[in-house]
Amino acid sequence: MALLNEDRLFPVEPAVRDIARSLYQDVQSLPIISPHGHTDPQWFAENNAFPDPAKLFVTPDHYVFRMLNSQGIPLEALGVPRMDGGETEQDPRKIWRLFADNYHLFRGTPSRIWVDHALQKVFGVTQRLSTQTADEIYDQVADCLTQDAYRPRALFERFYIEAISTTESAIDDLRWHKMIRKSGWSGNVVTAYRPDAVVDPDFEGFAGNVEKMGEMAGENATTWAGYLAAHRNRRAFFKSFGATSSDHGHPNARTEDLPTDVAAALFDKALRGACTPDEADAFRGHMLTEMARMSLDDGLVLQIHPGSFRNHSDAVMAQFGRDKGYDIPTRTDYVHALKPLLDAVGQEPSMSIIVFTLDETSIARELAPLAGVYPALKLGPPWWFHDSAEGMRRFRETATETAGFYNTVGFNDDTRAFCSIPARHDVARRVDCAFLATLVATGRLDLDEAPDVAHDLAYGLAKKAYKF
Amino acid sequence: MALLNEDRLFPVEPAVRDIARSLYQDVQSLPIISPHGHTDPQWFAENNAFPDPAKLFVTPDHYVFRMLNSQGIPLEALGVPRMDGGETEQDPRKIWRLFADNYHLFRGTPSRIWVDHALQKVFGVTQRLSTQTADEIYDQVADCLTQDAYRPRALFERFYIEAISTTESAIDDLRWHKMIRKSGWSGNVVTAYRPDAVVDPDFEGFAGNVEKMGEMAGENATTWAGYLAAHRNRRAFFKSFGATSSDHGHPNARTEDLPTDVAAALFDKALRGACTPDEADAFRGHMLTEMARMSLDDGLVLQIHPGSFRNHSDAVMAQFGRDKGYDIPTRTDYVHALKPLLDAVGQEPSMSIIVFTLDETSIARELAPLAGVYPALKLGPPWWFHDSAEGMRRFRETATETAGFYNTVGFNDDTRAFCSIPARHDVARRVDCAFLATLVATGRLDLDEAPDVAHDLAYGLAKKAYKF
Amino acid sequence: MALLNEDRLFPVEPAVRDIARSLYQDVQSLPIISPHGHTDPQWFAENNAFPDPAKLFVTPDHYVFRMLNSQGIPLEALGVPRMDGGETEQDPRKIWRLFADNYHLFRGTPSRIWVDHALQKVFGVTQRLSTQTADEIYDQVADCLTQDAYRPRALFERFYIEAISTTESAIDDLRWHKMIRKSGWSGNVVTAYRPDAVVDPDFEGFAGNVEKMGEMAGENATTWAGYLAAHRNRRAFFKSFGATSSDHGHPNARTEDLPTDVAAALFDKALRGACTPDEADAFRGHMLTEMARMSLDDGLVLQIHPGSFRNHSDAVMAQFGRDKGYDIPTRTDYVHALKPLLDAVGQEPSMSIIVFTLDETSIARELAPLAGVYPALKLGPPWWFHDSAEGMRRFRETATETAGFYNTVGFNDDTRAFCSIPARHDVARRVDCAFLATLVATGRLDLDEAPDVAHDLAYGLAKKAYKF
Repeated sequence: MALLNEDRLFPVEPAVRDIARSLYQDVQSLPIISPHGHTDPQWFAENNAFPDPAKLFVTPDHYVFRMLNSQGIPLEALGVPRMDGGETEQDPRKIWRLFADNYHLFRGTPSRIWVDHALQKVFGVTQRLSTQTADEIYDQVADCLTQDAYRPRALFERFYIEAISTTESAIDDLRWHKMIRKSGWSGNVVTAYRPDAVVDPDFEGFAGNVEKMGEMAGENATTWAGYLAAHRNRRAFFKSFGATSSDHGHPNARTEDLPTDVAAALFDKALRGACTPDEADAFRGHMLTEMARMSLDDGLVLQIHPGSFRNHSDAVMAQFGRDKGYDIPTRTDYVHALKPLLDAVGQEPSMSIIVFTLDETSIARELAPLAGVYPALKLGPPWWFHDSAEGMRRFRETATETAGFYNTVGFNDDTRAFCSIPARHDVARRVDCAFLATLVATGRLDLDEAPDVAHDLAYGLAKKAYKF
Repeated sequence: MALLNEDRLFPVEPAVRDIARSLYQDVQSLPIISPHGHTDPQWFAENNAFPDPAKLFVTPDHYVFRMLNSQGIPLEALGVPRMDGGETEQDPRKIWRLFADNYHLFRGTPSRIWVDHALQKVFGVTQRLSTQTADEIYDQVADCLTQDAYRPRALFERFYIEAISTTESAIDDLRWHKMIRKSGWSGNVVTAYRPDAVVDPDFEGFAGNVEKMGEMAGENATTWAGYLAAHRNRRAFFKSFGATSSDHGHPNARTEDLPTDVAAALFDKALRGACTPDEADAFRGHMLTEMARMSLDDGLVLQIHPGSFRNHSDAVMAQFGRDKGYDIPTRTDYVHALKPLLDAVGQEPSMSIIVFTLDETSIARELAPLAGVYPALKLGPPWWFHDSAEGMRRFRETATETAGFYNTVGFNDDTRAFCSIPARHDVARRVDCAFLATLVATGRLDLDEAPDVAHDLAYGLAKKAYKF
Repeated sequence: MALLNEDRLFPVEPAVRDIARSLYQDVQSLPIISPHGHTDPQWFAENNAFPDPAKLFVTPDHYVFRMLNSQGIPLEALGVPRMDGGETEQDPRKIWRLFADNYHLFRGTPSRIWVDHALQKVFGVTQRLSTQTADEIYDQVADCLTQDAYRPRALFERFYIEAISTTESAIDDLRWHKMIRKSGWSGNVVTAYRPDAVVDPDFEGFAGNVEKMGEMAGENATTWAGYLAAHRNRRAFFKSFGATSSDHGHPNARTEDLPTDVAAALFDKALRGACTPDEADAFRGHMLTEMARMSLDDGLVLQIHPGSFRNHSDAVMAQFGRDKGYDIPTRTDYVHALKPLLDAVGQEPSMSIIVFTLDETSIARELAPLAGVYPALKLGPPWWFHDSAEGMRRFRETATETAGFYNTVGFNDDTRAFCSIPARHDVARRVDCAFLATLVATGRLDLDEAPDVAHDLAYGLAKKAYKF
């Protein structure tokens, strides 16, 4: 028995399915370009074995533990650490059993596809996870994890990853990237410049973070000029570890292009912790434009990931901290918000701004029309809650008619769950081939053109957009 | 000839249709759980015959008369009573003919399916309603209505309704429910606690309503403490008539969790009619949290139905009053709006908050992410204008990937049109089976799992979520 | 070889495709009613040959040049004139080659279908446009354009256009329409009343425009009464050239119904250039209601096209001026915005207000519920970025269940690209037949009813709604 249907995610009509299958056969084995994600560079640096099945599949995967939590299972029971160091489940087998007992909750979700894919393709599991099969599958996965073939570098190679980008804070010392370099290992693992901690006045320890950045950069970052110089220095440092992009996670898509004195004054206020919420928002927005100007010089691609209301539950934030599945998308305006940035750099042919959205209503209405005309703007792939079969389909259906395929940038897996990377790229390739097959079958694309597009969507566009 | 296609609403591809048909065969005859609706308990109490076809199908059905009105047919001509007691059409046959003459307007609408279903399945009609068939069908239906088998209790049993909830105002004396109890009839008809008249400062006669509630509860409801005590008392009274839920229809989804003194001061202002619009909104929002706290004690499920701009036409409101088809959905925020309530009770595993939406854009973006993590929150089914084949399909497509199936609560018919109840549940069962069949055919759900889910969606989830 | 698939845009399942094909066969050759568009009446007045392929397909088509621009091709290279009279490409063959070299950008877009359709059906081209075929196709089209059969009137007749409406400013002298009249040519080309230049205080030269309108109308248009009288006069003049509608392009859907003195005072301020942005918005909104009141007298249909953020790029506006593909849709509220207008005239059975949207989220939530109840309100077809296969499908899926088919008004091509008119109507007819076939195949519409609806959607509804 196989967990996976060989024709999964293809159109159901046999003739269209045949077209999709044929397109997919050409792209299924292409190398993976993973230009945006959150894998841990320490894995590749140290190449230690992953500890156990629960720590691989449950505890770090917010898609998994949020769903279990939604049905009343306490995060403690899933081994999620408490902020107060209080007791949480430590037995990985118990955590795994809880996951297995509730595996029906994932019916119809992308997690189900990702987990099934990883279990079958990475670990050779052939039975569906359930109360009955929990222990047997646990043992099988745990046994694999003791083998060298399941260490991070071996999996990286087995997953056929041509290049992967992690994401590090601007004040990270990139020690793991250094270690990877020194090791002589051939895997192409690069970093990305994530300056939230030093551009967001509301970030915990903002002033201290700026000071630290100044020290790392050899600049007096408490002056506006020194602060910008420190950014330039850090970006160059990140570039030396392969970075081709910066990444920005803001509560909204607001950008500003303020006069220097206004920006400098806001920066001073931010350092003093004196910004109003609107001023903090304006400063974040202005820094996107500053980052874009630096990109004109150093070539880093600018990624904007806006629109998440982070840590929505006060209780969970207090007990478990950030990133516990309680980040909720909000309505996001792009038309007014991006105008200052686009007026500043939108006509630059060398500029590349990749915008993501958690608000699908913006795709047909705002983002496809914007990306379909501004030379500098491209659309990032479906993100987070929409990184799914239906989400990807809706993305193509709402983006393509106005932005075409060539103002999009291929797929990002955006994940911390290492074993889900091949699964996620496989889903994207299948859904895109399904979409193309439907275009062909309905006379909107010629059969001889479709393989080129399929190849671009699976491989070429990501490589080009992210300059790999 | 039959009005209804046996395979209606199933997928068109034959292999997928076969899966859907097979799933549907297992659930089509399950009893109906109708946990939220607006049938009139007087029907079941008195068990009188329904008067005539027009009064059954046209005059009380806002879906029907709004469509006829949209094409310039005056509400008077449909027998809708005027506020000034002015003349309206009294001849049911004339009203019925007007309906029949314009039956083409309902092509492609859910009303068409509901009416055809009721005509065929309840009254044995085999011809499509039209100018030509109007009189014959009128006679056939009218003849049925004279028979005992078409009285409310007989239809209730024939519809195989296991349990139905009506909705009564907090200051209703539940006389019809009492009469049902006393009658010894076995039909399970329960009430639901709808306190809009006593929690909304903008409701007509708010202060008087509160006073009346106090009298009914034996409390001095003009003090904040007495007001809350009166609610507790009334909720207990409603529970004694089977209520398992409260229901709240607010203009938006705003919730508040105000300090006691602030809430009490707002309440005083509300009693004096002195609230600003924002204060009235805040008070309504705070009362949702108070209701939720009471639910922690008495176990009533909290239903929130927000986002309708009621009585949009001043002229129609003046001439015909409320509920004349002029309620229009508005954009509704949930992420910020529900936070106070969710911070107060969202982590309580015993709490059950069911949220509905008229703004489909909120499903993938806000509601599925919220319900997919908060233990207390569940998603109500597609509501009102979206209680339709396309609306239900969009609901599953946008909710399932993030919230799964088990954070939803089955189907609500939410209707005043008694004969449409089997039709509506049938549509829901068919659309859900179609959705599941598509998941199976595209490798997203195993064939052996789908029947369980189909059963849960048709029966199990509603029974569990509403504690029947 | 043919560029066009004979079954394009039909459902893929063979049995459903057969139904769609059969419905389409009945409507494909119906005459074209084009009740709203932007063709140039000078074409039909002078009947000169179109100059060259680039001037026919590239330079005037904002869908085409915006997509090329989005990939960094300067507008100058496409022959788009600069505001400063600076150099731009003058060689049509070079522009055509640039278009051909980048024709892959249009994969999956409506432009691809429209261009392929025009090339094949109008010019007999059988090869796909590409770098290789650019010159050959250029020569073939250029050769056609020298022939009498390709002059505007001949194409008009060949396209089987029964009636077409252009759109002229309220202060246009309608000279080309006069010339058409005088010519004795039988083609039915009418105008539409577009008063933006004299109702929008923010329009360039507003006060002068109003003065000019007064002169043309023989009224002192600087007084409120004279201004309204001038509108009435101009509307009558437009009606004498066949106008059956007025058309209004506002940044949002706001309407107002102000007391006369308030409106008059706003008008005075507007003439003095002293309106705040909100006052200008209020004045525009009030003028919609004034226009509606005039419609009650003169019978012109009122069209509202709201929600475009015009000329989003400051740089492009400065260098190339308006209408260069940088108009971006914005979120648009209708429920609150239209209330004053609907309270004023929404119950008038003789009134016809046709509303369009660039915000698809408003269709199911706001516009279908409004049009599904107000006698005066109808839904315009998918507009601009949504005038596409997916956009039309989404429109039917989100509008029909609540508004039905008979509160919609058929198709508008809304184009300046003359040769795309048959292509656009063909796409609409195919997509509507596909939608109807799906309803039939899923038991939501009877097979014998579908041809009537298909005919109405392709021809009858537009003719009736626009009073042709």
